Amino acid sequence: MRIIKNIFQSSRSHSPEDGIFFDKLTSILGFKPNNLEHYKKAFTHRSMNKTDENGHAINYERLEFLGDAMLGSVIAAHLFSKVPTGDEGYLTKMRSKIVSREHLNELGKDFNLIQFVESKVSFQHFGENIHGNIFEAFIGAIYLDKGYSFCEKFIHKKIIKPYVDIDRLEGKVISYKSLLIEWCQKEKKQFHYEIYDDNGTGNLKHFGVKLHIDNKIVAKARATSKKKAEEIASKRAYFVFQSQIDTK
Amino acid sequence: MRIIKNIFQSSRSHSPEDGIFFDKLTSILGFKPNNLEHYKKAFTHRSMNKTDENGHAINYERLEFLGDAMLGSVIAAHLFSKVPTGDEGYLTKMRSKIVSREHLNELGKDFNLIQFVESKVSFQHFGENIHGNIFEAFIGAIYLDKGYSFCEKFIHKKIIKPYVDIDRLEGKVISYKSLLIEWCQKEKKQFHYEIYDDNGTGNLKHFGVKLHIDNKIVAKARATSKKKAEEIASKRAYFVFQSQIDTK
Repeated sequence: MRIIKNIFQSSRSHSPEDGIFFDKLTSILGFKPNNLEHYKKAFTHRSMNKTDENGHAINYERLEFLGDAMLGSVIAAHLFSKVPTGDEGYLTKMRSKIVSREHLNELGKDFNLIQFVESKVSFQHFGENIHGNIFEAFIGAIYLDKGYSFCEKFIHKKIIKPYVDIDRLEGKVISYKSLLIEWCQKEKKQFHYEIYDDNGTGNLKHFGVKLHIDNKIVAKARATSKKKAEEIASKRAYFVFQSQIDTK
Repeated sequence: MRIIKNIFQSSRSHSPEDGIFFDKLTSILGFKPNNLEHYKKAFTHRSMNKTDENGHAINYERLEFLGDAMLGSVIAAHLFSKVPTGDEGYLTKMRSKIVSREHLNELGKDFNLIQFVESKVSFQHFGENIHGNIFEAFIGAIYLDKGYSFCEKFIHKKIIKPYVDIDRLEGKVISYKSLLIEWCQKEKKQFHYEIYDDNGTGNLKHFGVKLHIDNKIVAKARATSKKKAEEIASKRAYFVFQSQIDTK
């Protein structure tokens, strides 16, 4: 059976591969990890049959449980404060949408976490849910590495801010791209979306998009489809220009 | 319709009733609350039809959602660190047992939270789940009042330590009372359980038990039945004497 190569070899410490892993992680996290072992575990599939010195399995499954719980409470607190009019049923429903398997799979893909996964099973056999599972495990690893409030900040900055949009979840805003285009046209602003990155195939497919308005790059975004990257960039630009857009 | 009297009148601030509420809360919490309003809300039933200045409903239902989420993540992190051998399925099952409706109802009763509830519906019409619901809302109020790590400490000190026992949940230990009695008999120690408090009826029924060993009070506990109070006191005593018991 082929062993899927990844960018670290967790049996060695402080190897050159660790250096690359550390750098890539730092770029995704937006901060330097303290203890790489938590993250290595979050990306280790059970097919590796790894155990620690006490014979406990090393793989991402327990971390999934932990990450799921942390996401649940951070999103709950966010919804609670953000939607003072929402009753318990509304809050529960909105949280379910945000932490749906489908949404977590998308997040895992957008963070391109699968590049780190160490497995004896080939990617083709994983199924779609691997993305959401390792995404949850990744959140669990952040919690273990840095504690709750750091984990909460990460979720706010990297998930809630760019991805969680209550108006969209409620179906009130269909597309930030169309809102933004409408505003540009009304204000006679030049705009275009530039694809600056287009790589990978299948599960690893990735696009980078820059949004130019009046010859300035106002937002960038990366996602697993051109459409999604454009939408995220549009949302970011929308919030940059929100005060101008809202007063029109 | 009769308004159930409770010990605070939330329409007034800093009233003598607030003082009593503050003192009783402080005794349950083990710390001084900052903002009584969160706790008042946690004990306000929807039948009061209260709203704030923005027209948002004031009752415990939203806080229940928040408290449930906080309990979920604190218990998840506890189980994760406490049971390194437990896989995802085990951890999920154990958490469900700990935060079961039945267990939360017991916790709400043991904290005697119903004494604070403000309602136009009489207690008889609430049903059993009122205890668990206001218990969750109470946890939500602690989180809002003091933040996550304080809330986590409260859950550890007041819930996990006295009530959550993984061996018992797994069915490994049937009763701490029998373990303790066995040890006392083997060690020729005198022991007896003294009921020092027995009040209330129905939902409000409460017992206080002191466990004496060799004429010294080694543990106290309060619960809704004599049997439960004795078991909690026994568990507390068990942990006091654990090193001696385990080496026998």
